[in-house]
Amino acid sequence: MSSSDIFIGETLGTAILILLGGGVCAAVTLKASKARNAGWLAITFGWGFAVLTAVYTTAPLSGAHLNPAVTLALAIKDGDWKNVPVYWAGQLLGAMIGAALVWIAYYGQFHAHLTDREIVGGPGAQATTAKAVEAQEKGAGPVLGVFSTGPEVRVAWQNLATEIIGTVVLVLAVLTQGLNDEGNGLGTLGALVTALVVVSIGLSLGGPTGYAINPARDLGPRIVHALLPLPNKGGSEWGYAWIPVAGPLIGGAIAAGIYNVAFA
Amino acid sequence: MSSSDIFIGETLGTAILILLGGGVCAAVTLKASKARNAGWLAITFGWGFAVLTAVYTTAPLSGAHLNPAVTLALAIKDGDWKNVPVYWAGQLLGAMIGAALVWIAYYGQFHAHLTDREIVGGPGAQATTAKAVEAQEKGAGPVLGVFSTGPEVRVAWQNLATEIIGTVVLVLAVLTQGLNDEGNGLGTLGALVTALVVVSIGLSLGGPTGYAINPARDLGPRIVHALLPLPNKGGSEWGYAWIPVAGPLIGGAIAAGIYNVAFA
Amino acid sequence: MSSSDIFIGETLGTAILILLGGGVCAAVTLKASKARNAGWLAITFGWGFAVLTAVYTTAPLSGAHLNPAVTLALAIKDGDWKNVPVYWAGQLLGAMIGAALVWIAYYGQFHAHLTDREIVGGPGAQATTAKAVEAQEKGAGPVLGVFSTGPEVRVAWQNLATEIIGTVVLVLAVLTQGLNDEGNGLGTLGALVTALVVVSIGLSLGGPTGYAINPARDLGPRIVHALLPLPNKGGSEWGYAWIPVAGPLIGGAIAAGIYNVAFA
Amino acid sequence: MSSSDIFIGETLGTAILILLGGGVCAAVTLKASKARNAGWLAITFGWGFAVLTAVYTTAPLSGAHLNPAVTLALAIKDGDWKNVPVYWAGQLLGAMIGAALVWIAYYGQFHAHLTDREIVGGPGAQATTAKAVEAQEKGAGPVLGVFSTGPEVRVAWQNLATEIIGTVVLVLAVLTQGLNDEGNGLGTLGALVTALVVVSIGLSLGGPTGYAINPARDLGPRIVHALLPLPNKGGSEWGYAWIPVAGPLIGGAIAAGIYNVAFA
Repeated sequence: MSSSDIFIGETLGTAILILLGGGVCAAVTLKASKARNAGWLAITFGWGFAVLTAVYTTAPLSGAHLNPAVTLALAIKDGDWKNVPVYWAGQLLGAMIGAALVWIAYYGQFHAHLTDREIVGGPGAQATTAKAVEAQEKGAGPVLGVFSTGPEVRVAWQNLATEIIGTVVLVLAVLTQGLNDEGNGLGTLGALVTALVVVSIGLSLGGPTGYAINPARDLGPRIVHALLPLPNKGGSEWGYAWIPVAGPLIGGAIAAGIYNVAFA
Repeated sequence: MSSSDIFIGETLGTAILILLGGGVCAAVTLKASKARNAGWLAITFGWGFAVLTAVYTTAPLSGAHLNPAVTLALAIKDGDWKNVPVYWAGQLLGAMIGAALVWIAYYGQFHAHLTDREIVGGPGAQATTAKAVEAQEKGAGPVLGVFSTGPEVRVAWQNLATEIIGTVVLVLAVLTQGLNDEGNGLGTLGALVTALVVVSIGLSLGGPTGYAINPARDLGPRIVHALLPLPNKGGSEWGYAWIPVAGPLIGGAIAAGIYNVAFA
Repeated sequence: MSSSDIFIGETLGTAILILLGGGVCAAVTLKASKARNAGWLAITFGWGFAVLTAVYTTAPLSGAHLNPAVTLALAIKDGDWKNVPVYWAGQLLGAMIGAALVWIAYYGQFHAHLTDREIVGGPGAQATTAKAVEAQEKGAGPVLGVFSTGPEVRVAWQNLATEIIGTVVLVLAVLTQGLNDEGNGLGTLGALVTALVVVSIGLSLGGPTGYAINPARDLGPRIVHALLPLPNKGGSEWGYAWIPVAGPLIGGAIAAGIYNVAFA
Repeated sequence: MSSSDIFIGETLGTAILILLGGGVCAAVTLKASKARNAGWLAITFGWGFAVLTAVYTTAPLSGAHLNPAVTLALAIKDGDWKNVPVYWAGQLLGAMIGAALVWIAYYGQFHAHLTDREIVGGPGAQATTAKAVEAQEKGAGPVLGVFSTGPEVRVAWQNLATEIIGTVVLVLAVLTQGLNDEGNGLGTLGALVTALVVVSIGLSLGGPTGYAINPARDLGPRIVHALLPLPNKGGSEWGYAWIPVAGPLIGGAIAAGIYNVAFA
């Protein structure tokens, strides 16, 4: 694969991933969406099939890592770090493009959600009382949730551990793919299984932190959230931002280590 | 493929697609249906598996485009426009047949829904007060929704953008199928992945407009809605009808352009 | 395939099909079940994966028709009627065995459901007032629904039409399998697609009648319902029983006709 | 396969299985989880995709039995008992590791759930009144349910029968895999079908007992529940513990017998 194919593939693929993944969060949580309150199953299948769509579409170009933790683990496993910067750059750029596309596709829904008088004290208004601040946070929280993850119980060591554990499961499945598919690279069936593994992680390990399990998936959209001119959007929770970056990278490295000991 | 195989395949396939796709909307929204209120997951899996069933059944005849935007994109990609009119004619005819079959399969449910005394003022009655008009619209809205899509927030540029974005995702996945399946044409696994891509688009991008992403899927049933002798059915919303036709066609063309630049 | 392999395969396979299919109805509707009120998606995926499990397990023995309408359609298509009686006998016997196994697996749930004092007037009591009769029917209805299908709106021509349409979709997909899988018989992927087609029919066409689309699936368990010593079980609705037998057989014949015209 | 590959594969695989399977129970039932009340579909798909993830990841090492009943059935079928102790040891150890990982990943959720003042009388408090005991049981029940199964209606013969029936269905599907996949061992598609069979059993036969269908899945986590320092956790229900061990082993043996009679 040429560097330009890798960069284009990762940018396009991560953009599709975040467009569809952020999209399902917008669909389920924002006002004036037909999918509102469709629930956790919709979120988890939505993210899983986002992986399927993105991997299936861009695997022929770049192998479809779409996740810096996967790129890191493959580099450790193969001892080849040459293309890591190109992969990571494409993934971060793609995640930002995808988040911006969610904003376009759900433009009216964001507006309806954030400017609802009952929630945020009227269009453009500043929250001035405790009650209004609380109400505004009720509106702003789901909007940030369209872009980035956040914990239900804020305990840094547990949040980090949950992200590490989830990413180990994901990356182990990705690394053993080569053994199952007998050297044919990432086939269609492998893309489908990877997607269902992501559904599995969402259903089983997504409860505490919302399962970033991918640094680009969290950081790229959080940057876009900080940049977008959304009314009443509130802060971007930068204090938490390091966990969904560090946890998946640590998890990817651990998974590569387990693979090299147990499978190689 | 002969022209007659193409025409029969597309007519049969799009009829199955709309029978099952319109059917799940009827199942979930109409009164006196066992599936009533089964929710957005049922809608999205219902449409996705409708694509699977229709594609799997008719791919041996016509390749199973079943969507004028797919036909357009393939024509742009291959530079071959010869069969486009036959595909499009079969797709529109099939969509109309499918919508009529939904009407037959859910005949009693349509009747129960539209003539419910509490909703529309009694069987055959004309709504004469503001309250009755509002109530009748509550009954008529879901019925039109069985046939055609409509936006939650009526902003033409956003509605068009959402349909374009969704169709780009769909058509890119269809176009790269040939790369994944190594020239074997549309295989069973490709049909399955396409179906799950449609579920994905529904979950992630269906919230604002109900994701037509297929001009025949929206236009054919809307014509049938206008023709059918349903009591109290209300208007067919022709003012919105151009968006789910133009959006998917534009999206298909954009996807073909991306494909020709990035993948060819 | 020998006659004994066919008989054993169809008996075993249809028993598994009805055990799992009837089981999901029991799980979702009976009292004292962990799955109670899991909804229509659970019912439709439950039946679909019941088909997958049964077909996957018994295809090596008998080809896994598991449905008299499929056997009929294949006989029409191939002009070979020799094994039809063996298939049909195995299917009916298997359906009865499967329904009896549901009764064993959910014994305590049936008892809890049917003898609940609030519903049926106390254990063993006879309903003597209009209110008690109504209450007893509320308990008995779901129990019959574990075994057999019934319509939401009782209009014979529509109920028959819905069963015919659903079966045409099912059998067309089964018949074209040979074209997709290129003569390899019923492969694992074909079993998976068939299962998802059944989910699709359930989601899209199951609302009006509960989608028997299989004469053995409805008749066998209805016989078992009539024979079992369930307290307060109510009648077995024999007046409706011909529709889920005749509809699927007619649908299977129509699908064979369409296949022979369009695909052969 | 070497004994060490078997032991490592089964330990790793069963740990992943129980991490994801116990995880979905924690996600759906514990307080302060984003997936709370996601319902029975989430539980059943969560366990099914847990099987997929675990089997797919570890099949290259040990063949991925991950279930003593599967190991028993294969030993009966093949008449080869040599590796049974290694498989069983790895499975039990893995199940315990997996349960401990669930505890880590959901640490804050367990704490929030068990020490909620309204439920258990305040952090660290002992329940002293009848009401408090009842409330504590409401908190402790779901926590035990993250680790082990329990019946809705406590009738030993039925509970045992339900576990036997469910395991027969599972193991028959596993045993016939070799026939479907033509001697290629456990392929990716076979892993996917097995996972959906587990979803099927959960949807259809999980209502009465919570479908252990695997002795290690129930016993290992129950031991961990007894050992963990969870506040107010209540008892580990050892009186029921023999049923989800004996039932699946009997079911596995019966399935092997059916296989040897009908398929061999």
